[in-house]
Amino acid sequence: MKLHIEAYILERKELVDKRLSNIFSESGDGITRLDESIRYSLLGGGKRLRPILCIAGCESVGGNIDLAIPVACAIEMIHTYSLIHDDLPCMDDDLLRRGKPTNHRVFGEATSILAGDALLTDAFAILAEVSLRDGLDSKIALEVIREISRACGSQGIIKGQAWDLALEGKDVKVDMIEKIHALKTGTLIEASVVAGGKVGRGSKKEVTLLRKYARPLGLAFQIIDDVLDIEGGAEMGKHSGMDIKRKKATYPSLVGIERAKEVAQSLTQKALLAIEDFDGKADPLREIARYLIKRKR
Amino acid sequence: MKLHIEAYILERKELVDKRLSNIFSESGDGITRLDESIRYSLLGGGKRLRPILCIAGCESVGGNIDLAIPVACAIEMIHTYSLIHDDLPCMDDDLLRRGKPTNHRVFGEATSILAGDALLTDAFAILAEVSLRDGLDSKIALEVIREISRACGSQGIIKGQAWDLALEGKDVKVDMIEKIHALKTGTLIEASVVAGGKVGRGSKKEVTLLRKYARPLGLAFQIIDDVLDIEGGAEMGKHSGMDIKRKKATYPSLVGIERAKEVAQSLTQKALLAIEDFDGKADPLREIARYLIKRKR
Repeated sequence: MKLHIEAYILERKELVDKRLSNIFSESGDGITRLDESIRYSLLGGGKRLRPILCIAGCESVGGNIDLAIPVACAIEMIHTYSLIHDDLPCMDDDLLRRGKPTNHRVFGEATSILAGDALLTDAFAILAEVSLRDGLDSKIALEVIREISRACGSQGIIKGQAWDLALEGKDVKVDMIEKIHALKTGTLIEASVVAGGKVGRGSKKEVTLLRKYARPLGLAFQIIDDVLDIEGGAEMGKHSGMDIKRKKATYPSLVGIERAKEVAQSLTQKALLAIEDFDGKADPLREIARYLIKRKR
Repeated sequence: MKLHIEAYILERKELVDKRLSNIFSESGDGITRLDESIRYSLLGGGKRLRPILCIAGCESVGGNIDLAIPVACAIEMIHTYSLIHDDLPCMDDDLLRRGKPTNHRVFGEATSILAGDALLTDAFAILAEVSLRDGLDSKIALEVIREISRACGSQGIIKGQAWDLALEGKDVKVDMIEKIHALKTGTLIEASVVAGGKVGRGSKKEVTLLRKYARPLGLAFQIIDDVLDIEGGAEMGKHSGMDIKRKKATYPSLVGIERAKEVAQSLTQKALLAIEDFDGKADPLREIARYLIKRKR
């Protein structure tokens, strides 16, 4: 039976959205707009790519997704924190995110910095709970925490964002763009798939192959994102062409749109090759990879 | 033999400082000042109260401090992150911290937000490593991660900071000040002592008593801090009297300096009472409590 990838994505997305909605109180604390600010960014749309990859990674090794869902939610919380902080006036100074005004424009800078801090911190409490309350093997839980914190820390997303800011407006080579993408986007996409594989109790070999799948996939995803930023209109949910306005070098701006698409295609093939020996349970991972380069937003 | 508390504190502080200095590279990444910014705040003095309490908590139950030191360092990293973010122009807009210009004044807002984010995130990688590499029992490591992330998250430090900002310039009652102190300062002080007790393999009962010790201690510490802010001159290492200038209600500004000191004294007695059945190994905790209300900075 052929996998309907769009139905698969929608179903997994709903599982994640529902769980995320339960994490932060709708009524707030009565004094601040912190919870409201967190919910605004966390529940405001988003493709949920990383959590879906985490769940699909778990399924690919035959794991039960019940334990992968909270891990997937923690990853999406961390991703949302990084978006809120990246959008700040002193960082990328973005006005729109996921089709809505950015968090700091609605809630002010202080609340949006705190909302990001809270999402990041609370994610680790959730990851600890997956073991302490829900029963995930404690060593696996610690490996997942290490994987995710390294992906997002001073040698991961944060270094990528710092480099990105430092090199804005400068003459940047393609290999540097690739490095920044690997840090800013690649690390957490890799951690998502790997965490899923670990939670699903994949073998060491399987987890290594999942890592080999996720690395080129992360870069392909970011290249297509940058292509869509140039090509895309209203569909993108953020101001399209922002990278050009900001004089930010991107993959397609350096090598051209057609060449960028070819590279993304070949990276996708590389990702698929890594998991070719997996059985049909890895079809979601395969179809997600194919879906990501065909998407229009 | 009587414990020389100042020598004890100095020795433990040096253990922590030395370890912290090894965590972030001195040479940096060659592109940004991120590592330099992190080291500037992390290694720039500081009493190291929380890490010392963590180590003393471990010793009080007869634990080996080798595993408590990295946990103590992770806690100090998280504390430093919270100071960097609190000092930002959109938050408390502080000019001096630990006697030096605040992080954002030296490195700019973007780098200082990222430095805070990195300290917070990397702390969790270190906590995972204490088990995965150094051999701390994995369930204890997860309990420590949960304890610390809850102390710092949306229901802890971050809520305290959000409340503090929201109530600035407003008419605030003493019980609200106590609540904010409990969230902003108390939670991490409590988590420090409790984490030490857990890492030292204290019994459930011992850890409960350590918690009862730490709660009043945290409030006493903050009250004395606010007294010193009013009384203190150059010794405080930050602009003294800042709370008054900012029209921020504090414990001593509401009840008077003498009454505030009495309350701090009685909270300290309460802390000491909680651990009265502990043997001499808890003397560092006892002496730290006495030292904290006598300090001049």
